[in-house]
Amino acid sequence: MSYETIDYAVADRIATLTLNRPDRLNAYTRKMMEEMIDAFDRIDADDDVRAVVVTGAGRAFCAGADLEGGTSTFDLAKAEDSPVRADGSLDYSKQSARDSGGLLTLRIHRCLKPVIAAINGPAVGIGATMTLPMDIRLASENARIGFVFARRGIVPEGASSFFLPRLVGMAQALEWCFSGRVFSAAEAKEGGLVKTVLPADELLPAAYALAREIAENTSPVSVALIRQMMWRGAGMTDPMQAHRIDSRGILSRGRSRDVAEGVTAFLEKRPPDFPDRVSADMPDYFPWWEEPDYH
Amino acid sequence: MSYETIDYAVADRIATLTLNRPDRLNAYTRKMMEEMIDAFDRIDADDDVRAVVVTGAGRAFCAGADLEGGTSTFDLAKAEDSPVRADGSLDYSKQSARDSGGLLTLRIHRCLKPVIAAINGPAVGIGATMTLPMDIRLASENARIGFVFARRGIVPEGASSFFLPRLVGMAQALEWCFSGRVFSAAEAKEGGLVKTVLPADELLPAAYALAREIAENTSPVSVALIRQMMWRGAGMTDPMQAHRIDSRGILSRGRSRDVAEGVTAFLEKRPPDFPDRVSADMPDYFPWWEEPDYH
Amino acid sequence: MSYETIDYAVADRIATLTLNRPDRLNAYTRKMMEEMIDAFDRIDADDDVRAVVVTGAGRAFCAGADLEGGTSTFDLAKAEDSPVRADGSLDYSKQSARDSGGLLTLRIHRCLKPVIAAINGPAVGIGATMTLPMDIRLASENARIGFVFARRGIVPEGASSFFLPRLVGMAQALEWCFSGRVFSAAEAKEGGLVKTVLPADELLPAAYALAREIAENTSPVSVALIRQMMWRGAGMTDPMQAHRIDSRGILSRGRSRDVAEGVTAFLEKRPPDFPDRVSADMPDYFPWWEEPDYH
Repeated sequence: MSYETIDYAVADRIATLTLNRPDRLNAYTRKMMEEMIDAFDRIDADDDVRAVVVTGAGRAFCAGADLEGGTSTFDLAKAEDSPVRADGSLDYSKQSARDSGGLLTLRIHRCLKPVIAAINGPAVGIGATMTLPMDIRLASENARIGFVFARRGIVPEGASSFFLPRLVGMAQALEWCFSGRVFSAAEAKEGGLVKTVLPADELLPAAYALAREIAENTSPVSVALIRQMMWRGAGMTDPMQAHRIDSRGILSRGRSRDVAEGVTAFLEKRPPDFPDRVSADMPDYFPWWEEPDYH
Repeated sequence: MSYETIDYAVADRIATLTLNRPDRLNAYTRKMMEEMIDAFDRIDADDDVRAVVVTGAGRAFCAGADLEGGTSTFDLAKAEDSPVRADGSLDYSKQSARDSGGLLTLRIHRCLKPVIAAINGPAVGIGATMTLPMDIRLASENARIGFVFARRGIVPEGASSFFLPRLVGMAQALEWCFSGRVFSAAEAKEGGLVKTVLPADELLPAAYALAREIAENTSPVSVALIRQMMWRGAGMTDPMQAHRIDSRGILSRGRSRDVAEGVTAFLEKRPPDFPDRVSADMPDYFPWWEEPDYH
Repeated sequence: MSYETIDYAVADRIATLTLNRPDRLNAYTRKMMEEMIDAFDRIDADDDVRAVVVTGAGRAFCAGADLEGGTSTFDLAKAEDSPVRADGSLDYSKQSARDSGGLLTLRIHRCLKPVIAAINGPAVGIGATMTLPMDIRLASENARIGFVFARRGIVPEGASSFFLPRLVGMAQALEWCFSGRVFSAAEAKEGGLVKTVLPADELLPAAYALAREIAENTSPVSVALIRQMMWRGAGMTDPMQAHRIDSRGILSRGRSRDVAEGVTAFLEKRPPDFPDRVSADMPDYFPWWEEPDYH
């Protein structure tokens, strides 16, 4: 339950996941990926967690893939069950061929709780793309962000081509990825990537304030449904597709204990205390999509 | 032809649809849904209507679903041909299971005329989501907007998961829906939901000015086509799909009486007077999509 | 190799394509379309070209379709192998029925190099829509932009219903296309269509500075991949689709000479000198999509 590369703590119904390799600027490793995925499994399983804050220990958020391996950092030839065949050709379909950034971002995308990135310092490469499936990004004035892939001769990963244009529009996504430029928190705000830029010592308090606003006022089941409704809605081609899902939600949730409490609390002008739990009370139509395989 | 819950009037080729239950802050009922849908049918059938303005009577735009029914407001057990079976299980496929917000927003989405929301006061729940399939949103300084569903234990409706991310981007859509916060007109403007915030007495004049700009200068058939081209284009996966539709439009409309008038008026530096009518002169390839069923 | 309607030059690894009919405000003709497409073929074939700047000669960028043909400008009845049948009915499936704006924008969309629009003056109709598949748009203070189609009785073309909502959001796309208004560079910036507005004499220097930032720091193969990843990612419905492509890129490019150089240069804190070439070194999985036919 204890981790080597991250720190995990829960307080006041908010989980904090801290990237914790400060001597390496929290650079991303296979181990960190595995531990982060495990932490998100705990987050989803724990009804006492209503929101998540992700931040970095020390002066960086995450400096990207750990380049200790030098030029072979991105070479999967030595991976277990390597996707590089003896003759040097590549087997793209192998599980071992999967981008390790994407394994994490797909897990975050499936998370049932809202996730807030508190970007406290440099966030570069996977350090930037791992924040894209999170829901709200706040940045310290010390943050520096870069989609630097083209400067390393590689390509953006972490399913960022799915996430980034939906967050900042196509022109901004292209420009940041083409140039590979490391840019300021102010440019990130201007371009729509982060919600707010804050003095360093106000970053975590602001993240917790947002997390509390959600945790104290809303139904966790509603919030879990909203996350998937919005991301999946953005890929729809006709509003009828959304209407089908909405109708299931209104019919099912409209009879729930949460709605009784939500409407009563509103009419009584008091804060609601929602009884439904993500672990047990997700509606029967959830998930309404078929989870695609890698192959 | 006269309505109980809305007011409908046409002047200067602009229809005004006013939500008109001011004693209930124009709260949404089944009756209001039916009357609004009927009004949009009239709007589409009337060639004298070139643009639509939707606003609210009294101090609110629309306070959301009428909660007079208390905790059973969203319970469809007593609906005609109820989708709640005797054993309590739910039949999601029944027509009676359809979200009443979505029935309205899908109708507005199909409208052949541009629709301008003049948000004069609080617009909450369905009061907010009904504005999303409208084309331009203007707000009075008195407007307050909230996607409050998570605070009531329910989910966003009105096909808002289709509309909202396309209007304001994914991060803003998530944050407003997660928090359920009621926010100011200024925040709505900052987040890209409304085009302009105006003093209360300048709201309707600004809405009519925009409506007139369209009504006086453009071809109604072109405008009807543009609306569907843009919304459907946003869901395409390859520009070739748009190119096919564009080509039909250029070939068909390029020989129309409207183009002859539009080009002549431009060359003669005078306002155009377009002869084609939405009721009779939509091109033969319209609609080019198959309207999906609810089931 | 010399053109009638455009000018084409390469210097410092940057191609400049200048629309060059200044006496007609660079109005678009069939000939200009053919020459621009030919120039983009050269751009893709020439490894010495790392970025492209498109601008206009004289005081305009491009005033739109050349209206010298008057009211028959958009009538394809006299086209070679006309799609207008003897009885006046239309054959939408014929190659000759294809929108000439779209033939250009689809070619630009497929370009392997980043394209920067330097909008030096009026850009109207196809003059506006041809910039949409370009990657970055800069505007002079003299620029005026208009999606004027509805004022001519025609419809937006150039696959703009695919491009425009992804660049500026749905509400702005609808409003500009509904009104047909010609708007200022400042409004274009405010609406997210152009990145920066500059004094006239600073426009080309700024475009070249951006082009150089890309040309001097990034892998051309990475850049060619990014362009297609981002545009195609925006149309995906699930991040798994992006993850599959990313994984191919990381596996294939992770073993490339470019990555060895990119990582080494980064660790040695010197500019990279990437050896891979777009003409010979695109990875074997490119293109990963099936190019759709017109029919």
